[in-house]
Amino acid sequence: MFAKETYIERRERLRARVQSGLVLLLGNDESPMNYAANVYPFRQDSTFLYFIGLDQPGLAAVLDLDEGTECLFGDDPSLDDIVWTGPRPLLQDVSREVGVNRTAPSKELGQVLSKATRQGRTIHTLPQYRAENVRRIADCGPGSKSGVTTLRIADSQDDIRPSADLIRAVVEQRSIKSAEEMEQIEIALGITARMQMAAMKMAKHGVFEYEVAGAMEGIMASSGVRPAFQPIVSVHGEIMHNPYYDNRLKAGDIVVNDSGAESPLRYASDITRTIPVAGKFSLIQREVYSIVLDAQEKAIAAAAPGVEWRQVHRLAAVALMEGLKELGLVRGDPQEAVSAGAHTLFFPCGVGHMMGLDVHDMEPLGEDYVGYTDTIQRNPAFGWRYLRLAKPVEPGFVITVEPGIYFMPELIDRWRAEGKYNAFIDYARLEAYRHFGGVRIEDDILITPDGCRVLGPHIPKAVAEVETLASA
Amino acid sequence: MFAKETYIERRERLRARVQSGLVLLLGNDESPMNYAANVYPFRQDSTFLYFIGLDQPGLAAVLDLDEGTECLFGDDPSLDDIVWTGPRPLLQDVSREVGVNRTAPSKELGQVLSKATRQGRTIHTLPQYRAENVRRIADCGPGSKSGVTTLRIADSQDDIRPSADLIRAVVEQRSIKSAEEMEQIEIALGITARMQMAAMKMAKHGVFEYEVAGAMEGIMASSGVRPAFQPIVSVHGEIMHNPYYDNRLKAGDIVVNDSGAESPLRYASDITRTIPVAGKFSLIQREVYSIVLDAQEKAIAAAAPGVEWRQVHRLAAVALMEGLKELGLVRGDPQEAVSAGAHTLFFPCGVGHMMGLDVHDMEPLGEDYVGYTDTIQRNPAFGWRYLRLAKPVEPGFVITVEPGIYFMPELIDRWRAEGKYNAFIDYARLEAYRHFGGVRIEDDILITPDGCRVLGPHIPKAVAEVETLASA
Repeated sequence: MFAKETYIERRERLRARVQSGLVLLLGNDESPMNYAANVYPFRQDSTFLYFIGLDQPGLAAVLDLDEGTECLFGDDPSLDDIVWTGPRPLLQDVSREVGVNRTAPSKELGQVLSKATRQGRTIHTLPQYRAENVRRIADCGPGSKSGVTTLRIADSQDDIRPSADLIRAVVEQRSIKSAEEMEQIEIALGITARMQMAAMKMAKHGVFEYEVAGAMEGIMASSGVRPAFQPIVSVHGEIMHNPYYDNRLKAGDIVVNDSGAESPLRYASDITRTIPVAGKFSLIQREVYSIVLDAQEKAIAAAAPGVEWRQVHRLAAVALMEGLKELGLVRGDPQEAVSAGAHTLFFPCGVGHMMGLDVHDMEPLGEDYVGYTDTIQRNPAFGWRYLRLAKPVEPGFVITVEPGIYFMPELIDRWRAEGKYNAFIDYARLEAYRHFGGVRIEDDILITPDGCRVLGPHIPKAVAEVETLASA
Repeated sequence: MFAKETYIERRERLRARVQSGLVLLLGNDESPMNYAANVYPFRQDSTFLYFIGLDQPGLAAVLDLDEGTECLFGDDPSLDDIVWTGPRPLLQDVSREVGVNRTAPSKELGQVLSKATRQGRTIHTLPQYRAENVRRIADCGPGSKSGVTTLRIADSQDDIRPSADLIRAVVEQRSIKSAEEMEQIEIALGITARMQMAAMKMAKHGVFEYEVAGAMEGIMASSGVRPAFQPIVSVHGEIMHNPYYDNRLKAGDIVVNDSGAESPLRYASDITRTIPVAGKFSLIQREVYSIVLDAQEKAIAAAAPGVEWRQVHRLAAVALMEGLKELGLVRGDPQEAVSAGAHTLFFPCGVGHMMGLDVHDMEPLGEDYVGYTDTIQRNPAFGWRYLRLAKPVEPGFVITVEPGIYFMPELIDRWRAEGKYNAFIDYARLEAYRHFGGVRIEDDILITPDGCRVLGPHIPKAVAEVETLASA
């Protein structure tokens, strides 16, 4: 973990911002795979990590903003725990390492919150995404038959709702990355660079997608870290979050590799490269690849403090449409085509998202809090509604830049049948790209006072560089 | 998956056994890591897999035993799903592949169960170990504000309790492995053999535990399979389920490597070897190792149909105590020492457990149903209470055989201070073993009509074999 002062200072800022009531921060518990004792690798909640720093299951923290006290709730290991999973430091000792002075057994958490509720005090909580924690909060009322660790807060689960004040305060703090956070992201990117380059060399004719993904998982595990998300390694790059690896690579295929390691302190990285299995791109592959690369470079060049990210998205979309027009797949004015939404056939997702302790940073707190403002609201249209980030960016934001061109046969067929965007799209010519797949190129950037900086070691992305590695 | 006839036949047997009412089989959903959309690799529920065979999230099945109908509940992908995660086969098509004739949208599951409840029919369910599925069953009543996929079964969550009839029927079927199940276990063991041998060669001075674990994870991922459980790779072998890998190996250490891959159809393997980092065991390491190996071989030799597994456990415990007596750590009669429970200082866990679709097979259904009978009840004493399996074994059972000797400083200190088992244990001599760690040797066996057979390819375990590989 970071030095204890980091966490103390983060909590002080939070207290100053939220001011009154109690802040309840729930840590994650173990996540069962196929039975309670057979668990997935533990992943702590990112906001809990940010403010409390302790990367172990079964914890919760309460910051009493009125009394100025902080308490960590958890349980010391039993003899059975020691026999099975070894001696662990006492709660008291771990809490001291992060500057929290009080500790209490888990079962007292409900009592503390119950008392606060009776006194009419506000309990600030965050939205929950794990069913265990939803239950801890929701399954409360005095009639509940649940176990001692369940929060018995009030008569109705309606009393405990996520606090917009707390969410806004957390988003404000977590959005701006400190120097020590940037070090972690750089470590994660160092590992990811090794993964990406190993994949480029390995993605040859006859190899299965899972072998490439497996080699990358091996690199992460051997470095003592976990994936920030399940790697996407797919000859069906047109499927943006394809979770399957069962295809065998063939010369002529292109492979989208979207993957990223976590740092030891759980900061994410998120890089995409598109690899020609034959070692060289075909002519049409190189054309499409170059369009995406051009759009990515333009988006990076445009990223600067104060710039609305939806404008960067738009600029990338226009660049893609200009390129597709040169290929003859698109007609008319690219600006108009984007205004009409025609680009969403090829590029239905956003050009990037915040990144930090979560790969989609702070997503559990609500995308609208993270990426939008009172005046910059989500556009509900297809494609646009997937934008995770739209608001002006600030120095200290870490953002992914990941335009892509995707040829999705299901979408093409549906829109063609509907006669959608006939003014902008030449569906007849598009037929030749039906089995093309997709291209995505993604880097992670830090917004600086002057513009932005691409993070991490250089990972080949120019056509010649990629071909050199892919044919090695 | 297996041929559709396999699943049809399994369900027919289940119907014949349970006879009346409805059987509700809940599949697993995705399991969120740090936000809802960032999930762990999907793991289907093993009983659902056994009877339905479909390895994808969001499914449930109802077998109406009275009407003789079967229905699969789930939802076809939306356009958004297709854009993000690709086209998937329709529910109707996947259900046909496993011989289920009817399908219905998820939201109808609650109605079907609600109707059955109103009619006073029995709904047989299994115990739930994932909070999402606990909620799907418990969070029902007409007053519930939950989403459409929540089961609205009855007025009180008390109405839906796991059915002992169903549990017994499932345990009876899943306990006996078929030839095609054995093929899967052999595939899993083939991968595990490669992992274990790679680890033996790799566990050298200066290497971190996570590098060894990582190399094994890479082998699994590159083979397109997942771990059956998080590997244990530890110089603190005395901690039986040590989930940490942060130690650096030193010449003189021994490393316990307890790991196993899943087969493509999710059958487990579970193998332990203990590796000398120096390439050769020290004298006392070889002595302790040989005692464990002797106990393991005796346990394997004793395993046969009709033999109570608690007797195999006892026999292994006596063999360990005989060996420890030769080392001078134990005194008195080994049989008496085991009757008194003195062996639990060194060997507090069971000698083995059932293995199949779960590494601790059927554990979520309740260990007492799996490993005990009406007349063979769990012994609540320390050590004995951890036995997962005690009852007579039958042909077709797959079981692990994994005795060990563990020197746990915390337990030794506590018992010494309490003067516990002074008649059997020489605590003064034990001091020399304080930092020894632990040794475990584990294989998987199939109970045959004549005795048993050790499964999988041979993985070095004799002292000379292990040393040859560890010094390679």
